[in-house]
Amino acid sequence: MTEVSVKEELLKRLEEKNDRMIEIRRYLHAHPELSFKEDKTAKYIQDFYKEKECDVRANVGGNGVVVTIDSGKPGKTIGIRADFDALPITEETDLPFASQNPGVMHACGHDGHTAYMLILGETLIEMKDKLEGKVVILHQHAEEVPPGGAISMIADGALDGVDNVFGIHVMSEMESGKIFYRPGNVQTGRSYFKVTINGVGGHGSSPHKAKDAIVAASHFVVTLQSVVSRALSPFDVGSITIGNFDGKGSFNVIKDKVTLEGDVRSMSDEAQATIEREVRAKLDGISAMFGVTYDLDYKNDYPVLYNDPEITEFGVNVLRNTDIPELTGVEMCEPQPPSEDFAYYAKERPSMFFYVGATPENGKAYPHHNPKFDIDEKSLMISAKAMGAIVVDYLKGSSK
Amino acid sequence: MTEVSVKEELLKRLEEKNDRMIEIRRYLHAHPELSFKEDKTAKYIQDFYKEKECDVRANVGGNGVVVTIDSGKPGKTIGIRADFDALPITEETDLPFASQNPGVMHACGHDGHTAYMLILGETLIEMKDKLEGKVVILHQHAEEVPPGGAISMIADGALDGVDNVFGIHVMSEMESGKIFYRPGNVQTGRSYFKVTINGVGGHGSSPHKAKDAIVAASHFVVTLQSVVSRALSPFDVGSITIGNFDGKGSFNVIKDKVTLEGDVRSMSDEAQATIEREVRAKLDGISAMFGVTYDLDYKNDYPVLYNDPEITEFGVNVLRNTDIPELTGVEMCEPQPPSEDFAYYAKERPSMFFYVGATPENGKAYPHHNPKFDIDEKSLMISAKAMGAIVVDYLKGSSK
Amino acid sequence: MTEVSVKEELLKRLEEKNDRMIEIRRYLHAHPELSFKEDKTAKYIQDFYKEKECDVRANVGGNGVVVTIDSGKPGKTIGIRADFDALPITEETDLPFASQNPGVMHACGHDGHTAYMLILGETLIEMKDKLEGKVVILHQHAEEVPPGGAISMIADGALDGVDNVFGIHVMSEMESGKIFYRPGNVQTGRSYFKVTINGVGGHGSSPHKAKDAIVAASHFVVTLQSVVSRALSPFDVGSITIGNFDGKGSFNVIKDKVTLEGDVRSMSDEAQATIEREVRAKLDGISAMFGVTYDLDYKNDYPVLYNDPEITEFGVNVLRNTDIPELTGVEMCEPQPPSEDFAYYAKERPSMFFYVGATPENGKAYPHHNPKFDIDEKSLMISAKAMGAIVVDYLKGSSK
Amino acid sequence: MTEVSVKEELLKRLEEKNDRMIEIRRYLHAHPELSFKEDKTAKYIQDFYKEKECDVRANVGGNGVVVTIDSGKPGKTIGIRADFDALPITEETDLPFASQNPGVMHACGHDGHTAYMLILGETLIEMKDKLEGKVVILHQHAEEVPPGGAISMIADGALDGVDNVFGIHVMSEMESGKIFYRPGNVQTGRSYFKVTINGVGGHGSSPHKAKDAIVAASHFVVTLQSVVSRALSPFDVGSITIGNFDGKGSFNVIKDKVTLEGDVRSMSDEAQATIEREVRAKLDGISAMFGVTYDLDYKNDYPVLYNDPEITEFGVNVLRNTDIPELTGVEMCEPQPPSEDFAYYAKERPSMFFYVGATPENGKAYPHHNPKFDIDEKSLMISAKAMGAIVVDYLKGSSK
Repeated sequence: MTEVSVKEELLKRLEEKNDRMIEIRRYLHAHPELSFKEDKTAKYIQDFYKEKECDVRANVGGNGVVVTIDSGKPGKTIGIRADFDALPITEETDLPFASQNPGVMHACGHDGHTAYMLILGETLIEMKDKLEGKVVILHQHAEEVPPGGAISMIADGALDGVDNVFGIHVMSEMESGKIFYRPGNVQTGRSYFKVTINGVGGHGSSPHKAKDAIVAASHFVVTLQSVVSRALSPFDVGSITIGNFDGKGSFNVIKDKVTLEGDVRSMSDEAQATIEREVRAKLDGISAMFGVTYDLDYKNDYPVLYNDPEITEFGVNVLRNTDIPELTGVEMCEPQPPSEDFAYYAKERPSMFFYVGATPENGKAYPHHNPKFDIDEKSLMISAKAMGAIVVDYLKGSSK
Repeated sequence: MTEVSVKEELLKRLEEKNDRMIEIRRYLHAHPELSFKEDKTAKYIQDFYKEKECDVRANVGGNGVVVTIDSGKPGKTIGIRADFDALPITEETDLPFASQNPGVMHACGHDGHTAYMLILGETLIEMKDKLEGKVVILHQHAEEVPPGGAISMIADGALDGVDNVFGIHVMSEMESGKIFYRPGNVQTGRSYFKVTINGVGGHGSSPHKAKDAIVAASHFVVTLQSVVSRALSPFDVGSITIGNFDGKGSFNVIKDKVTLEGDVRSMSDEAQATIEREVRAKLDGISAMFGVTYDLDYKNDYPVLYNDPEITEFGVNVLRNTDIPELTGVEMCEPQPPSEDFAYYAKERPSMFFYVGATPENGKAYPHHNPKFDIDEKSLMISAKAMGAIVVDYLKGSSK
Repeated sequence: MTEVSVKEELLKRLEEKNDRMIEIRRYLHAHPELSFKEDKTAKYIQDFYKEKECDVRANVGGNGVVVTIDSGKPGKTIGIRADFDALPITEETDLPFASQNPGVMHACGHDGHTAYMLILGETLIEMKDKLEGKVVILHQHAEEVPPGGAISMIADGALDGVDNVFGIHVMSEMESGKIFYRPGNVQTGRSYFKVTINGVGGHGSSPHKAKDAIVAASHFVVTLQSVVSRALSPFDVGSITIGNFDGKGSFNVIKDKVTLEGDVRSMSDEAQATIEREVRAKLDGISAMFGVTYDLDYKNDYPVLYNDPEITEFGVNVLRNTDIPELTGVEMCEPQPPSEDFAYYAKERPSMFFYVGATPENGKAYPHHNPKFDIDEKSLMISAKAMGAIVVDYLKGSSK
Repeated sequence: MTEVSVKEELLKRLEEKNDRMIEIRRYLHAHPELSFKEDKTAKYIQDFYKEKECDVRANVGGNGVVVTIDSGKPGKTIGIRADFDALPITEETDLPFASQNPGVMHACGHDGHTAYMLILGETLIEMKDKLEGKVVILHQHAEEVPPGGAISMIADGALDGVDNVFGIHVMSEMESGKIFYRPGNVQTGRSYFKVTINGVGGHGSSPHKAKDAIVAASHFVVTLQSVVSRALSPFDVGSITIGNFDGKGSFNVIKDKVTLEGDVRSMSDEAQATIEREVRAKLDGISAMFGVTYDLDYKNDYPVLYNDPEITEFGVNVLRNTDIPELTGVEMCEPQPPSEDFAYYAKERPSMFFYVGATPENGKAYPHHNPKFDIDEKSLMISAKAMGAIVVDYLKGSSK
């Protein structure tokens, strides 16, 4: 019964620190920093671990902070990740701890992620002699803005020695008290492209002397529709949006140049690759058809987030078999439309990313990235306990 | 006053032969033959000139018959052309001399062209000592079906020594009694193309494993519209029609192959070349866009018919200054939509092609190629006299 | 342990009848009949139940045969369905029991479905006193051709008193020895449409006097692509294929009429409704744009097949907890592209439709509807035992 | 021989005033004013006629000045028109009399039109007792900017009592010394439209919740191409250019609104009407297809300029039969792409508008509206004499 005791002890210790955790979350909420500019938040995290028995590596791939807790015993190494950047949004809540940095807001819950992770980290350090193997905490910067912080932290060795990675996102529009998961592909991959179509300008009454860039670009948009309709499997997930069609000009002058920007979502590497290939094919076609040229900047931002089925099953079983009174259910959910750079860890190591419901107690849920976004702070304790239970059970017996 | 006397005599002699001319026309009308199969008509023409003082060359470039009338004096050589093929149409008139060859009909007036030309030829032969230079009569087969008879007759030397060529078309929808003309480009050039778009078939529920030829071909038809709208000058004339889109298949099987046939009309060599270039460009574009291949058979059938302005002015002046009682007016007309292989002569020699009004006396005009097509036979005498006057005035004085 | 004994006894009895089951399947395979014309097969089924203690109702909604086995005790009523029609395919196997009806073939395994069901039915009748409630066997005709037999059998009362329905499909391309299932939407709904676009014909050189049906129809095909790309959720499943574009005509005549046929697949009622609404909207648009009219025949053939999650979980648990030696695994599978009219039962009653792997022993699997289609006959015993186990466990205790 | 004497005398008097005419032109060139703001130029014109024996009506329909010269004898009334507004162009010539108004330039020759007309007017006044009927000089403002000055001058009675109108344009790219004309439709009509397509915005990953205005607008541009290609006669002239496609937005936000501006040219009222009807039809179609709405502002600016054939023949005959030594030819020309609001006079009265070649002596011709535009000033004397001759011959004998 040793292991159970360890887990029970951990949950009990976490429970006792709830006030401090909320305090930390509120402090972070009041002091948000933009992606890639989270210097003070990174410093705050480093300071938190000062004098604690762990290894802290700062400036990992940027503002990333990697904390290693070594039980001193052999065994596996579990990575657990929390992101800490905020968004360029002007907060419109009435919270007493609302943002003090005008135009910047923790409107995606990363403040909560960091708060629960610090408290969990502190507690794991306190109890490290009772654990096996190692815990690697990935305090990640810059999740919101491509290329994101994960990719550079990995390049800087953040995953060295790590066997598997777990991550959590609190979700304002999912029922508070519940945890949601989905094995396999769960969040879309994202690509971005910008293309300039170069024709030849001219006078409206002499189209034959020009190459009309607006006509060419319009055909491009039309023919793009056949990518999703014909080049993807109907069972695959993909979307292509041209959100910007800049063909501003004078009504009677044939436009020489049009710039388009597009957003691509997909739910498999194959779909992502198919779409890129097809966008290029469509542009080559437009080029041949209308005698125009094009300049394309195509970036595959975040990959599809893939939850390893075995690791996910392990995690779900831990959650279902741990006594967490606040937790009222562990349910499978649908895939989620947004993209998430945890996907990079999941490409490197079998991983699990799951969701902790956080609809505010008043039942009024604003979507993420909304100026009125808020969460039920109860979700932080659920997060801490859920992740703590996974850590304990994951490492348990791995030293043998 | 010699020359005037010659012309007056010619017109008088023609006048006297009106009954025979009508008889010939009716015989030919009753015995129509399809393009490239006009053997008996060609024989009839050859027989007509037997024992007459002229040089008859048969089988010129096919069924063509070239008759040369030599005045024995030096001077210019005028070519005059009449076509003699009929159409694959089942006649629906009640004429006593209606077609005796089921499914074949002189529904374009070539019977009339040949009748007036034979009578005019005979008369010119009778009077050849009063002429100067030479007259070359081009009895042409196969005007209706590309590549037409003109091109092969020219290749077979029909225009050797000829300085200029004149031609006439009787027109059922133009007012009888009048002659119409237009300098410059007057009848459209014509091109034909057939293209097979080769995709990859598949099941309707798995479009990503196929390359949908119907989708590719439809985009081709859509993008073709931009050729006339953007690649031609608004002052130019051009049209592209896809008259055949053969994509027959099963509703739930993605089509692997589609065949299209198109008809192109244009009013300048430049437009004709532009359209061909653009059709190819659009197909290259479709190919790049949808990963399909294509097989294109593109033929420029008949060129634009160009009336040389100087020759046309000469002809118009002759017509206006000759006393032809039946002729009530000589007027400029609009360009004419159909194509005409007289255009080949006009590319080789400065030429004039003009129209003799032939609306039937009852005022009921059916268009050319209609099963009820008919003409006012009075137009034949006007044609004979008009062309005869041009011949006389053209050659007059050319021996000096 | 009574119930277990009943199930064990059932499986044992089935085991003993394997040779007869194979014999029946081969007889049916040799005597296939087309959908809606399966008179002899229906008669064969009726004869099979003669003299047996059950209620047989023939000609249910056509050739359907409904067999009711009443335990005499109160309880629930389970429906179990097997289809028995064949396909218009000329068999190309070398099987000794190959089709004796030229041009007709059991290329979808319905012979196997019927064979296992008859043997299972016979055995359930033998053991009916040990069961509770009732078993309703749905021998269904005409699964392959819309509108299918299910809808008319239901209309004719086949589901009266039935609580839930279970069905099986043997799958040539799924691993033999395994059973596959998927809760929720599992097979696509299907719609069919035929549309005639009526323009106004004309001559290729005068497009302004015509309304070009090929141009209008091509724009329709192009704009249809935006239905899947923009009107469906990226997480939804849908496809629209125009498999027939009949625009045959003469190259230089503007086409007055084009007929198209389309196949629609979807994975939710919502998507099915969205697609129909959008197809109509696109046609209304084409009509407004090009001044053409259209005649649309739009049929929603088969609905999406929805496996009720609870019933499916029940079925999976039975399969996992029953000792069937031939069964090597019960696994979740991906959604399946084809449509299946079992969906109609599933719309009326919470149901489960699952797949029994049947790749031939030689490992060479031809897809369904292929002239060389074949199955591993071992799949029939697995089907009989699996369905038998579900029947017993389903009814067990329901009389209380 | 009286009339000839009048014409000869007029030409002689004009000849003597050449220096003053050039001086006036240069003064006007140095002091250009924008359309609808030509107050000083209008004042200059009024002042010019002060103390002269004529009726001057100022502020006709705006800055227009109408001068009536009454011979005191009965007869016809001829209108002759010269426009006097300039363009928003910064002059880039090195002329000593270059524009003194920064950003404004007489880059279309209206300074020349006004100079020759003033001198011609003065001379006609001097000789009015030798004329018959009346001369109405239309000094028109605002030709360059729709709705133009002609329409309001006509509404204000400028054509009251006028029988026919004549106008001249000097042409920098036509050979100096020659006059060019064309009977029938000679300059294109012009229309302008602005359309806003209103969809529903949304997030790029959820297209089904939005109505993508960029996709709808692109389909509109594509389908617009079929207007010229299919709805106009190939022998007609028309072009539609979308010169402005304002769909600026964020790459991952589905655009809710797009604004387009278009320019339409046509060469017949019928084509102009057809295009407007088709633009509306295409928008109705897009609206039905994509569930968007639209706001259209469609303006038919200038009509097609139609030269009455009889009046044109009269004018050409005068020009050919008048001894103007500087005039080296009177030739028919092709239709001219730009639009011209003289068309409004020509809609009200049978009129003639013709071109006086004005390529600068150095042979370097810049197009109209070019910052380096210049003319051969010799064209002014040709204009004065040509229009003077037409006035004299037109009125001659009309009093009888």
